[in-house]
Amino acid sequence: MGTSFQGYITRLIAWLKSFPWPYQTAIAQKFGPSRLPVPNAPEDMTSTKQYEGHASKAYMSLKMAFRDIGRLNAVGETLGRDFLTAMPEGAYKSRLGQIAFLYRRMHEELSDEKLHGYLEEASEHQKANPHEWDEWDNANMREMEAMYRHLACVPADLMERKARLAYEGRRKHRDVLKADDWSEARPFLEDMVSLQQRIAEAKVLKDNAHPTDELYQSLMREYIPGAKLSDVETSFSRLEEKLKEILPWILEEQAKRPEPIPLIGPFPAAQQMWLNKSLLKVMGFDFDRGGLYETGHNPVEGGTPDDTRLVIKTSDSRNFLESMKSALHEGGHGIYIQGLPRDTWRYQPVGQDLGAAVQESQALLIEMILGRTKEFFTYLAPRVEGLFQKFGDPAMTAENLYALKTFVKPGVDRKGADEVTYFFHILHRMRLEKDLIAGRLKVKDLPEAWNAGIKDLLGVEPQTHAQGCLQDVHWFVGKFGYFPAYTMGHMMAAQIHDKMKLDIQNIPQLMGAGDFMPVQAWLLDKIYRNGRLMRSDDLLDSVTGAKLTPAPLINHLQERYLGAL
Amino acid sequence: MGTSFQGYITRLIAWLKSFPWPYQTAIAQKFGPSRLPVPNAPEDMTSTKQYEGHASKAYMSLKMAFRDIGRLNAVGETLGRDFLTAMPEGAYKSRLGQIAFLYRRMHEELSDEKLHGYLEEASEHQKANPHEWDEWDNANMREMEAMYRHLACVPADLMERKARLAYEGRRKHRDVLKADDWSEARPFLEDMVSLQQRIAEAKVLKDNAHPTDELYQSLMREYIPGAKLSDVETSFSRLEEKLKEILPWILEEQAKRPEPIPLIGPFPAAQQMWLNKSLLKVMGFDFDRGGLYETGHNPVEGGTPDDTRLVIKTSDSRNFLESMKSALHEGGHGIYIQGLPRDTWRYQPVGQDLGAAVQESQALLIEMILGRTKEFFTYLAPRVEGLFQKFGDPAMTAENLYALKTFVKPGVDRKGADEVTYFFHILHRMRLEKDLIAGRLKVKDLPEAWNAGIKDLLGVEPQTHAQGCLQDVHWFVGKFGYFPAYTMGHMMAAQIHDKMKLDIQNIPQLMGAGDFMPVQAWLLDKIYRNGRLMRSDDLLDSVTGAKLTPAPLINHLQERYLGAL
Repeated sequence: MGTSFQGYITRLIAWLKSFPWPYQTAIAQKFGPSRLPVPNAPEDMTSTKQYEGHASKAYMSLKMAFRDIGRLNAVGETLGRDFLTAMPEGAYKSRLGQIAFLYRRMHEELSDEKLHGYLEEASEHQKANPHEWDEWDNANMREMEAMYRHLACVPADLMERKARLAYEGRRKHRDVLKADDWSEARPFLEDMVSLQQRIAEAKVLKDNAHPTDELYQSLMREYIPGAKLSDVETSFSRLEEKLKEILPWILEEQAKRPEPIPLIGPFPAAQQMWLNKSLLKVMGFDFDRGGLYETGHNPVEGGTPDDTRLVIKTSDSRNFLESMKSALHEGGHGIYIQGLPRDTWRYQPVGQDLGAAVQESQALLIEMILGRTKEFFTYLAPRVEGLFQKFGDPAMTAENLYALKTFVKPGVDRKGADEVTYFFHILHRMRLEKDLIAGRLKVKDLPEAWNAGIKDLLGVEPQTHAQGCLQDVHWFVGKFGYFPAYTMGHMMAAQIHDKMKLDIQNIPQLMGAGDFMPVQAWLLDKIYRNGRLMRSDDLLDSVTGAKLTPAPLINHLQERYLGAL
Repeated sequence: MGTSFQGYITRLIAWLKSFPWPYQTAIAQKFGPSRLPVPNAPEDMTSTKQYEGHASKAYMSLKMAFRDIGRLNAVGETLGRDFLTAMPEGAYKSRLGQIAFLYRRMHEELSDEKLHGYLEEASEHQKANPHEWDEWDNANMREMEAMYRHLACVPADLMERKARLAYEGRRKHRDVLKADDWSEARPFLEDMVSLQQRIAEAKVLKDNAHPTDELYQSLMREYIPGAKLSDVETSFSRLEEKLKEILPWILEEQAKRPEPIPLIGPFPAAQQMWLNKSLLKVMGFDFDRGGLYETGHNPVEGGTPDDTRLVIKTSDSRNFLESMKSALHEGGHGIYIQGLPRDTWRYQPVGQDLGAAVQESQALLIEMILGRTKEFFTYLAPRVEGLFQKFGDPAMTAENLYALKTFVKPGVDRKGADEVTYFFHILHRMRLEKDLIAGRLKVKDLPEAWNAGIKDLLGVEPQTHAQGCLQDVHWFVGKFGYFPAYTMGHMMAAQIHDKMKLDIQNIPQLMGAGDFMPVQAWLLDKIYRNGRLMRSDDLLDSVTGAKLTPAPLINHLQERYLGAL
């Protein structure tokens, strides 16, 4: 029983166990993680919350159903990693079928009539017996209902097709990007847009809160749960206005300083990967439960807290800062995933991350906000001078590396964009994908619309499709509505960072010493270990004491790029 | 409809497609396999037999159900490969749970009441309308019924536990073997034996054909479907008698010749793996649909025709012949798997291999029979002299390599055993596992019984548990009843080889030229591409014109080891 003394003790123990986790990590970092598994301890320890008895039988049935859905998802994640890192090429077609099949199964289980019955029954129990439900159970229940509401309305055929196209698209993108081949990309994207529209239509029937662009909003909510498009647009308007105002000043100020000295390679791939892995270790990523791979495919976040294999594309032998940037970004995702409450809530909805916007906040906090401080480069510079055997190279000083990574220059490329112009790339993509989903823009007209839009926002013109509308993998893997999550995440990251600076007052010194431990412990406590205990709005409120606003991001950019103006 | 003109044309096309396969392979070998996938061609082409319409609706439902079971199995195989080759250590516990869950699901689907109903309905249709069923459909139906009969009787809990223990056991074995730790092994084996007994009991209820050792027989039938233990024992008695007779002569003749010159390393691991992969390519293994990995775990055959990743344990830097032997053995399995009728019958029971005995026949045919001919070493010797930079090393001549690999010496080690004494290791293990399953031997008494038995058969005494009862992985992964499949396979291999020599008269010259193509094409035609069209007895009869007997193996050993006596 949830309220029994034993239940209380179990929860107490779980709570105590959860507490010293950062310190356990500290020990593991110091002495290396134990490589010895505990073969006889079952994964499914009955002391976990997942298996803990509960007064509502229906809720217990839900926990078991979602455990199985979660396991299928974890299996799908492993198949996905294998697909990117190890699968022989000839297994491609059958693997697509297996992955699509698995996601179809998952969807069938989620949309099962029986599960719907359990949800109703458990919900009644919850209302009638609130004392039997602790905050985690309540949150788990809320997230179960949200998953059901968000997904069960979509026909299984569409979900199966979505899973298959997502994996096909990853490869398709790699190939058309390399060949700069729009004619090969176009029919694929047409299929994808039409599939996304059908999925959105199925969702909107249950989700007609917003008068215009409901279809797009319903897709966006997969990545920013519960968000209103109008709110996103209000924030984006504010950012657009302000950044258009300060960008010329920034460029003007920058022009007064000497240009940063370009790096001179070669920077061998093996050393770059060693550096990237070592930085992830420094940041607290646990390689006993994960890894970092170079794949030739665009990066993809994901995995599970037990098995977080991060992938980055390739290292550029002329510029180690590029693969480092990817590694820091994926590492930010990875540390978040590894910090989720896996021992207690593995596979349950409440044990999952809060979606793409919060994911991106954690990635950008590491990659852009902390990873571009002057102090971080003070830590990095002498070490990369040694690693790459560049003693005395003027390009390798802390000052120059900082200058390189904070150099602002409007360009055609999102991933290579600086922190200030990055937003315009997101705004550009959001406008286009809204139009594509609403049917106002046809795929065939995308290249032209792309080029016109980016010229309008940043004054630059792509010379090839690869520099233009083929540069991102997102649409090829069906992630329409994902892009706004980057900027929402960037805003969150700045807002969280402001609060973190109040709690940990020596962050610059810590970065300079390569000591991420206090930062990681703080993030673990405030964010990671909560899973979905709170919704992202509430979490942000509980951490920062405020709703999400663009002000902290604007302040951060002004401070870093205009100094004390 | 199965009998419609269109159905006939479809089958004709499938047949024609299947025909030039070896020649396609020849082309691929010559010009390298295409690395370009065909992203838009669905895996599930409706022209395949799996999706072809049929007059029996129940049979169509069965085909779809077994497709899904087959897909789950393929997913399980990928998880298993990942487990051995890439998974981070910390994912161990949760992965066990996922694998066990997947196999439980598979079992639940197989033993579903609905499936039983389809089987009965389809079977009635088959009897009433034999003209609607072609030979492949009939065989598929027979194998569906056999799978159901063999497995549905086992409770799902036991199957889930079996899957979990099998993966736990693989690691347990690696660790206890390294540490020579019987006390750690014993409780695990006790659990495993008791689980196997419970599975056997569930099976015997439906399978009480044999008066004694029914439990053991029911387990053995997982590896040698339909075999009678009494038949196996009759063959083994004949082999025991004959080999005990000729072994002293062989040793006597051998003593008259100078001892082979031992190899002097080091043979670097990277070169050994290059050699092993290159030999597999020569043998026709398609690396576009598979790979070869060193894992530190005992080898494991398996995978699917689309994704056949072979694993061997490690390379010994002092002796490249050891890892080569493993690679040739696993390669024999791999070529068989890759040759199964995947385009037409992927996932269907009739498209699968014929079980462990036939699997081992293909592995031992390559490893021991063809891979130890004088001519094969004529091909190998100059190449390894170059690869390992040993010009003029007297140990590296064809004659000496042949002498090393055909040197007969009773020893404690099965995997390192020569071709003649190998059988005694199998006989020894079969006796022990029969006694363990029957309860006549307790796990606690295993080390003593092991040592006494091997001394009795071969006059040798293990000095450690690792040299004794801990040397094999099989019992740790729950493969009780597997061992006889090696010798049954060895017998089959010799019998098949006799027939092959009649059809391809220049096998020695081909081996000497490193040309496996005609052999591979013959095996593909006679064995691989048939899947389970025939049961193994009938297949052997159709290929060799005789039932399985030990005579060809005895002749082969006499010929190779005693010359023209």
